[in-house]
Amino acid sequence: MSSPARRGRPGYDQDAVLQIAVEAFNLHGYEATSMGLLAEKLGVSKSAIYHHVASKEALLELALEQALGGLEALLTEPAALEGPADSRLEHVLRGTIGVLVDKLPYVTLLLRLRGNTEMEREALRRRRDFDREVSSLVEAAQSAGSLRSDVDARIAERLLFGTINSIVEWYRPEGPLSAEELADQVIAMVFNGLHAQS
Amino acid sequence: MSSPARRGRPGYDQDAVLQIAVEAFNLHGYEATSMGLLAEKLGVSKSAIYHHVASKEALLELALEQALGGLEALLTEPAALEGPADSRLEHVLRGTIGVLVDKLPYVTLLLRLRGNTEMEREALRRRRDFDREVSSLVEAAQSAGSLRSDVDARIAERLLFGTINSIVEWYRPEGPLSAEELADQVIAMVFNGLHAQS
Repeated sequence: MSSPARRGRPGYDQDAVLQIAVEAFNLHGYEATSMGLLAEKLGVSKSAIYHHVASKEALLELALEQALGGLEALLTEPAALEGPADSRLEHVLRGTIGVLVDKLPYVTLLLRLRGNTEMEREALRRRRDFDREVSSLVEAAQSAGSLRSDVDARIAERLLFGTINSIVEWYRPEGPLSAEELADQVIAMVFNGLHAQS
Repeated sequence: MSSPARRGRPGYDQDAVLQIAVEAFNLHGYEATSMGLLAEKLGVSKSAIYHHVASKEALLELALEQALGGLEALLTEPAALEGPADSRLEHVLRGTIGVLVDKLPYVTLLLRLRGNTEMEREALRRRRDFDREVSSLVEAAQSAGSLRSDVDARIAERLLFGTINSIVEWYRPEGPLSAEELADQVIAMVFNGLHAQS
């Protein structure tokens, strides 16, 4: 709910509109969120929103780009391209957790996407391409002998993302656990296991 | 869609009604599934369904009981109560994967539950109690020195269930991977880690 003092206040930029839109999409569901509801939350008229974005779908596309662009950028970082495959994999997984924490509402939106439109299906294709790159890193590390090969690479990749993606359900960035500490705990479990090292 | 030949055929029991209801809840969402739609899928009249169950909510409650009852029963098995804490934990996690595979549509429904009614919130409380028992097993195994203590027990429990619960998104019981093989791969990753043992 916008306070009356805020109503009509100028100065919302596209980022601010996007942030409030994504909050609303996650809370009420994308389908159930109308441009009218967004205008109400922003305390502006619908036409003021259309000054920033062409449509609700354009807002969704911008939001998904925040998540997907962040993930895809990880794959082009030097530490993802050079060095032993297991180190590259660890770098990408730590980065994925970093993107998840930095862009929590955007990644949440991406993970809940059903693929109802061509644009949504394209976003899901990009997400699958990212997952496949990670699956290739698992395979490369298995071939190099640094990851165990009795776990199927494709299953390992799915379990890794199952573990990491579930973080959106409970992690609160304002809580005591930093993104780095969280990444340390995830990496410790999936790479070295919960068993005490003897 | 029911075939015309099936329409009016007698012999649906409560289990069959429940199975079709859960499929519909998972496909269309619980809120969007009416008793009329269920009757259509079953090829019977609405009053024929009310012969088996009192309400749509009673169907949801029966469905959730399938998942929750299965999980809770694991905790009373001898292998969950006796022996070293890490073995008890492994038994419960393997059992959780077994319940997930055996009762896939029921567990899927439980995992998607939002807690919109008192009955749903009670189901979520039972699920949280189960999770807490697993968290206690992690703590016990850490105290016994068999699990590493640099991973927080509560975070470990959340990551474990994140890993396991994500299986509902991709596992197909009719595929080549058996529940036992799946459990072996999950246990290998979370207990011993993906790194090759040197």
